[in-house]
This record gives sequence, C-alpha cells and structure tokens, in this order.
Amino acid sequence: MDAITVIRAKRDGHALTPAQIDWVVDAYTRGEVADEQMSALAMAILLNGMDRAEIARWTAAMIASGERMDFASLPRPTTDKHSTGGVGDKITLPLAPLVAACGAAVPQLSGRGLGHSGGTLDKLEAIPGWRARLTPDEMLDILATTGAVICAAGEGLAPADRRLYALRDVTGTVESIPLIASSIMSKKIAEGTGALVLDVKAGSGAFMKNLDDARELAETMVGLGTDHGVTTVALLTDMETPLGLTAGNALEVRESVEVLAGGGPADVVELTLALAREMLDAAGLTDADPARALADGSAMDVWRRMITAQGGDPDAALPVARETHTVAAPASGVLTRLDAYAVGVAAWRLGAGRARKEDPVQAAAGVELHAKPGETVTEGAPLLTLHTDTPERFEAALTVLAAEDAVRVEPAGTPAPARPLIHGRVA
Amino acid sequence: MDAITVIRAKRDGHALTPAQIDWVVDAYTRGEVADEQMSALAMAILLNGMDRAEIARWTAAMIASGERMDFASLPRPTTDKHSTGGVGDKITLPLAPLVAACGAAVPQLSGRGLGHSGGTLDKLEAIPGWRARLTPDEMLDILATTGAVICAAGEGLAPADRRLYALRDVTGTVESIPLIASSIMSKKIAEGTGALVLDVKAGSGAFMKNLDDARELAETMVGLGTDHGVTTVALLTDMETPLGLTAGNALEVRESVEVLAGGGPADVVELTLALAREMLDAAGLTDADPARALADGSAMDVWRRMITAQGGDPDAALPVARETHTVAAPASGVLTRLDAYAVGVAAWRLGAGRARKEDPVQAAAGVELHAKPGETVTEGAPLLTLHTDTPERFEAALTVLAAEDAVRVEPAGTPAPARPLIHGRVA
Repeated sequence: MDAITVIRAKRDGHALTPAQIDWVVDAYTRGEVADEQMSALAMAILLNGMDRAEIARWTAAMIASGERMDFASLPRPTTDKHSTGGVGDKITLPLAPLVAACGAAVPQLSGRGLGHSGGTLDKLEAIPGWRARLTPDEMLDILATTGAVICAAGEGLAPADRRLYALRDVTGTVESIPLIASSIMSKKIAEGTGALVLDVKAGSGAFMKNLDDARELAETMVGLGTDHGVTTVALLTDMETPLGLTAGNALEVRESVEVLAGGGPADVVELTLALAREMLDAAGLTDADPARALADGSAMDVWRRMITAQGGDPDAALPVARETHTVAAPASGVLTRLDAYAVGVAAWRLGAGRARKEDPVQAAAGVELHAKPGETVTEGAPLLTLHTDTPERFEAALTVLAAEDAVRVEPAGTPAPARPLIHGRVA
Repeated sequence: MDAITVIRAKRDGHALTPAQIDWVVDAYTRGEVADEQMSALAMAILLNGMDRAEIARWTAAMIASGERMDFASLPRPTTDKHSTGGVGDKITLPLAPLVAACGAAVPQLSGRGLGHSGGTLDKLEAIPGWRARLTPDEMLDILATTGAVICAAGEGLAPADRRLYALRDVTGTVESIPLIASSIMSKKIAEGTGALVLDVKAGSGAFMKNLDDARELAETMVGLGTDHGVTTVALLTDMETPLGLTAGNALEVRESVEVLAGGGPADVVELTLALAREMLDAAGLTDADPARALADGSAMDVWRRMITAQGGDPDAALPVARETHTVAAPASGVLTRLDAYAVGVAAWRLGAGRARKEDPVQAAAGVELHAKPGETVTEGAPLLTLHTDTPERFEAALTVLAAEDAVRVEPAGTPAPARPLIHGRVA
C-alpha cells in the first residue's frame, strides 16, 4: 500500500477500498503519509466525491485513530447537539442546561470560531474565570453532578481529524461534503453520545449557502450516525439573517442568559425549544417539557451550576466594549434584508473573530441589532450598534457592511422575504 | 494575494489570472506557499485543466524563477531535442553529435531515468570517466569546440520546476498535460536554445499511452515554444515496442556507437535521421546532409571529441554484466507483440533503472532483443537476453515479462500490427 496509488485511485474517479481508507488515515496519523500527499488526496476527494460506503469507512478510520469516550456509567441518557455554525448562533449556551434540566446528560465538546463564524468556547470565555479545558475525569464529574458540560475536545479524540482539519483549512479543501460530514461525525461518535441532533444551517451566514447542499450534508451525517448506532436527527435551519439580536462573545452570553431567564429574542427561543425537543426525544425522554424548564427557572439553575463548576462566576459583570458606534436606518420603511454574512464579518473585523486559530479574540466586541427583517424602521433611528475595544476597527466593519449590501429598507407595506426559521427535518 | 484564494479559484473551475500565476509560482519558489498548498493546487490543475493563456503564463513564471542561459556568443545556430521518454530511447546519443557534425550547436541538458524509462545521463555514465556535471563555462566551452554537449541541468535553471516536479512525483499529480508541458518547456526555454524539436512518444512504453493525448501534449508544447520565440516542431513517434534492440545503459551506448559507425538497427537510424533533419531545418541549416555525416564518419568524430571533453574514454571497454539469462521464443511463427512497457520494467528490475531518484543504477544491466515485431522466430531460439550483475533479479524480470503479456508469437503468415515509427508532425 502506498500513498500515490491511493491518490491516483481517487484522482481517476474510483471508489477507495476499505483497506485503502484504513491504511491512508492511519498512515497519515502516524506521519507516514505526508501533508502534501494528504492535501492532494483531499482535493481529489473534494472534486471527485466519495460514496456512502467510503464516507462511512473514512469516518470509522478517523474514530479508530484515537480514543473513544464512554458515558455508560451515567444514570441519565446522553444526548448532544452540533451546529454547522452561523452568525449569532449562541443556541448551545441555553440549550445544554435546558436539556439537562429535563433529565438528559449533555456532553458538549465545542470549538472556537474562525472567520465570520463565532465559537461556543470563545463566547463562554467572556465569562470571568470560566475555563474550556477539562480532563476527561473532570468532564465526567461535572456531567454527573450538573447534567451538562461544555468544554474543549481532548487531544486524544479523532487525532486524524484534528490533523486533517488543520490541513484542509490551509489548502482550499474545506468545502467537501464527505470531508465535512466525516470530520463532524468522527468527533461526535468518538465523544460517545447516545443521541445526536444536528443543526445544519443554510444561508448567506452559513457554511452551506443553499438548502440542497445543507440537506445533502444533513442526510450524509444522519446516515453516518445511524450506521454507528447513534440516534441521529437533523434540523435544517435558516442563516440568511443573524440568529437573535447579537453577534459577538459577551453580547451573545448576555442574550443566552435572557433566554434562560424566560425572555430573549423569539427566534432564539423557538430554535432552542425545537432543538431541545429533538434532543430529548432522541434520548427517549418524550415526556419532558423544555418550555416549562425555561419558565420555572430550572434551566437557569443548571446553567449557574455548570458555569460555576468550570470556574466561572455566573453573577460577574460581563465585559463591555470601550467604544460603540451606531449605524442608523438609511430610510423609513420595512427592513427587508439584514445579511448574516455581512454582520458576521463585521463582528469579526471589530475583534470578535479571528483569521487564524492562534489569534486572540475580544470578549466585548461584536454587533448588536435593533431590528430584524420584517420589522418597521424609522430613518435615522439606531439600526445596529457596533462594539469594540479598538475603535480604529469601526471603519473596516462599516466598509464590510456597505460592500456586502448588508441592509435594505423598502417602502412600508413591502413584504419581507418570508423564510421560515426551520426549513425541514432529516431523520 | 494568498494561496487559498488561488487554490479555490482553480478548484472551482476558474482560469487563474496572470497575477495569481506569477504570485503562486514565485511564492512557492521562495517557500511562502507550502508544499501541501502547491500539491492541492496541482491536483486541482490536473482535474480542472488550464487554458493556453494560463499554461503560457505558468511556463513564463517558472522560467522567471531562475536564470536563463545565453548562447548568442556562439557562431553557430543552436538547436536542441527533447524526448518525452521511452524504452530503448537512446536517440540523443547519436543525434547530438550528428547534428553538430552538420553545422549546428546542440546544448543538450538531459536527465536521469525514473521507473521503466531510461535516462540519457545514466546511459552516458556507463562510459568510463564520463561526467554529467559541468559548470556553465565548461558547457559553453565544449559547445564552442565540439558543437555538442550533453550534461545535467544546473540548479539555477527553472528552480520552481525542480521543486514542483519533485512534489508532483510523490503526490499523484504527474499526469497533467498543462503541468508536463510547462515543466518541459520552462527548462528548454530557460536553457536558451534557438530551435527545439520534440519527440513526443505514444504507446505502452511511453508516458502518453494514446496518440490523442500525445498530440495534445505536442500541440501545447509547440505553442509554448513558439510564443517564447523558440522555433519548435514536434514529431509524434511510436513506443509500443522498444526502440532498437537494447534497453539498458551500457547496452544502449554500444548500439548508439553502432549507429554512429554507419550500422545499427533500422528504426534507430530512421528516427535519428528524421529528428536530425527537423533540428537542422529548424536551425535554418536546410542544406545539411545528416545521412552523409553518418556515412562519412564526421558524426563519430564529434561523438569522440564530445565524450573526451567530458572526461570519458570513447575507446574504453563498456561494462559487461556478470550474468545473462536467455528467454527463448515460446513457439515458431511471427512475433506480433514485444511490449515496450514490459521490457522497460524488466530492464528496471534487472538494475538498469531506479524507483527513487537517489537510487544507483547498474551500468551493464538491461534487456537485449533478438527480434522485433513482424520478424519470424523459431521455437526455442533466443528471443531476449537479460543482463544483470545481480542474478537474484532474473526472477523479478521474468515475472514482469510473463505478467504483462510481453511476448506474442502467432502462426507464420499472421500480419503483425502495422504501426508506423513516426505517426505525425506538429509545427
């Protein structure tokens, strides 16, 4: 077996054999297959695809490259959620404690943001004292005592994926459904959850710009989870406009706490409850009532215990940006467009995101929205507030908002494009 | 400008802009673009192609990555030949001194063999004392005094190609016409020849297995040469069966000297004269008579001076293999098939070739043919003689000959497939 033969097979449009996949993933993890060989293979996979059997084997090989976690000792059923990422997507923050409050255990291994997409760990690190890194024992302990834990994945989980993901990031080989699906699912299956709900986003602020691609990715991942004995369901959700009214780390924590307190923007509440329902159903907890757990404060109780268990102070004041800049509505009428991608890039430019994974982020930077598409706005009234500790960044954010045609206001009575928040379900 | 943007453009089927090509080739040469990024780009180029303008710019960028040689000080017109490589292709050895004997200067920068294809430098190194490495001054001096020089290309010529070629070799990205054409032509144009004749081979022992691919490669290279002001012509020639009666280093030198002495196999003589005619015409020496220069010994005189000038002894005995093994004709009748690829791999297995560029080769190893397709053979009479210093290799060579269905003998009267030696001409 050698790398060139495997690369050529995929380059020439053949399906890789199980033996070829097992060998190449293992040899890459061991360093026998070089980065330049794996990137050529990744490009061939991106352009020529993989069939379902190949994707399943590739995922299994990545799982086999490391250790697997085991939550069998917990008295509760485990259930987890993964989002393909978007702008203002803070759903994990209220969702994990909410589902735990309803009787499940939620072992949520999360990541950091890159580019215009925020990352759950970056958001939680806006809370003074909170730490993302836990040992497996700490993780299990917090899960057993609070029912939910949100932390960084350990180095031992799917190391082949860790290495491949970093390689794809610098070689233009990210946008491949087989590679995206196997990357996500290898980590989630290795993590050992019993049930998994996928939030696959479609729209300008999402990785998948159109619904057909999002559906294909969802179907691929649901198939992989099912094949590995994990009850897996996906919701296809909208990402044409930001979720909620904030994009930024501390800003999103504040909005999440509002949801846990029984308030918060309608779309964040709706999606949190829909995903909670799916997670609980997938875990067999069909009688649980997540709306009630939000209303009665039990979800907030789990949140406070979970944050405290990881060194955070749930009562501490969140960081506030040194400077703000208000963008006014350009006209009176109906807001028909507030583009997710533009708002995500603006938040990134303000300091909330990073271009490279070693860059720091500002906890307080971001964008606050004062209206959502479909709402009436008045010329000159605040539409967006930009937050940053480094005011020299305002110009870059404003340039992005202008260049991306981020905001559109049309005469009163114009119907805003009706996009549902949830486009469909794949099971 | 950044590597990911360039990779994505080609991945998504766009033409690269001149600025993108200039930048990526230069940045790769400087080490700013990493190997894993260039290999992903090479795979995208292999699968999505490049148009003529892109190939021309890519070639120009590779030339610009290093120095260019200049033979303007020579009183004679320069003319060179490049073969895409085959089995038994020793044509450069008699051809360079022959064309020099007819009044042109032949600055022949050659390479080493890899896999089943032999390399001109490996062949000449079978001559005791001969050395391939010359300084540019030595090269110019030998060219001025003898009219022909065959040596290794210096490190300074198209360094981007040197690095890219090594990368393609290990990443399954060799088989791309744009990358092959730009690799060959960047070196030949940087070498500074005024005229160039390409011998583009098609058949089992060639890089291009079919004539359509060979023609496309020839047309691409002729276009590149012409665009750079080099008079360029290509012959499309056959490589279904080995050229001449030998494949191996010292064996091929011996056959070349036979041709220079006015003898030698008919196909080698025919191709040598056809290529000489093209080289002389392209250099404007339309009155020269290469057949006469072979017959009157003037080509042999140049050969002897050229070999001597590079430290070789043209009168020294060539190395002879320690062991030989004869393969007999399996039946009486007409030899209808003697496969070039199988013979090439057999010679390689016997020690004449190398799997990696740092491997040594045996000077005396190789395969000698006692008949060519179309000739009558008698059961039990010698058909092939295998030569090696390491007799444990006979088995591997015999296995290849058997597995590749190398030899076919059919009843007397069966017509052998009629393949012309020269399939066509591209100018």
